[in-house]
Amino acid sequence: MENSHVFISVVHYPAVNKDKKWVVTSFTTLDFHDVARPARTYELGGYFIVQPLKSQQFVINEQIKYWLEGFGSRFNPRRSDAAKLVKVVSSITEAVKSIEKITGKTPKLIGTSAKKYPQTVTYSEMRSKIEKKEDVYLILMGTGWGMPEELVKSCDYILEPIQGPGEYNHLSVRNAVAIILDRLFSVNRDLESL
Amino acid sequence: MENSHVFISVVHYPAVNKDKKWVVTSFTTLDFHDVARPARTYELGGYFIVQPLKSQQFVINEQIKYWLEGFGSRFNPRRSDAAKLVKVVSSITEAVKSIEKITGKTPKLIGTSAKKYPQTVTYSEMRSKIEKKEDVYLILMGTGWGMPEELVKSCDYILEPIQGPGEYNHLSVRNAVAIILDRLFSVNRDLESL
Repeated sequence: MENSHVFISVVHYPAVNKDKKWVVTSFTTLDFHDVARPARTYELGGYFIVQPLKSQQFVINEQIKYWLEGFGSRFNPRRSDAAKLVKVVSSITEAVKSIEKITGKTPKLIGTSAKKYPQTVTYSEMRSKIEKKEDVYLILMGTGWGMPEELVKSCDYILEPIQGPGEYNHLSVRNAVAIILDRLFSVNRDLESL
Repeated sequence: MENSHVFISVVHYPAVNKDKKWVVTSFTTLDFHDVARPARTYELGGYFIVQPLKSQQFVINEQIKYWLEGFGSRFNPRRSDAAKLVKVVSSITEAVKSIEKITGKTPKLIGTSAKKYPQTVTYSEMRSKIEKKEDVYLILMGTGWGMPEELVKSCDYILEPIQGPGEYNHLSVRNAVAIILDRLFSVNRDLESL
């Protein structure tokens, strides 16, 4: 796997709600494939669903079983292949420990934010760092109304927001994952010819 | 709207199934936002859901009503804003006629395919054409196991497949829409600095 030193996570806790309060968000079933399939396409090391609630973990683990051992694995082996990357953890710390176990290194955290921070990087800067393969990385994707500012600030790198021509840039986490992985890892974006 | 001369559609008929037979696929509720929100972010002219079944059209129209007039419109006005772009049509022909009515021009059809055709273009070639604003375009996104070959061949332009480092490139239609619109319309991909 070309990018097995890079991991992605969808963080259901901590997240903030509309009123900026810390909450646990629920898992969206389609996130399963819509994050696992681009993660598999771009050959990442793994995809962590960060969800502390046991009842939610049960639902996610049922979905993993369906695609790894159940009918799904026979009906659509390609999806099964992507599902192998999915792991459920209770916290970001647990994801970090799991990555340390797999790679022997503590991952650098990559966040995303609409605001500028001292550690904000462009996609090309992040891409160059990743391509060196000196470090291991964990990309954190927020849910709800985003990640708490404290968490964003604690990241080693923060990616610029994805922008359109105007003010509106409210993408879903599934949209953002696809675009970010494409920007960081795609092999035929025709960058050369532009 | 910067790219109001470009429209996107998710085609539920014609589609092919696993056995290459023509079928009508069902609408996936999350497609609604996961196509409308990037379409709004990149300021497209509209998003057509091509679905001939009346029962399916009913479900989609209920979702549109929820976001334009119902609780959704008050709870999350940003989603309501994106929902304004969504239109349900029974066929690609109906989408084309609707675009002719809005713009006065017959749209050029843009398809996507894993195979190479005489009309295959790179993303940068397509981007240059679109930026001229001489023509009007309709991007066709397949569902199920893809669009029938006859339909793909009838497109004016066919975009290259989105590739990862290896053989696996099985993305969801929501992933593909986000990546394609980002490649064609994004303003901060850092192309210059790469």
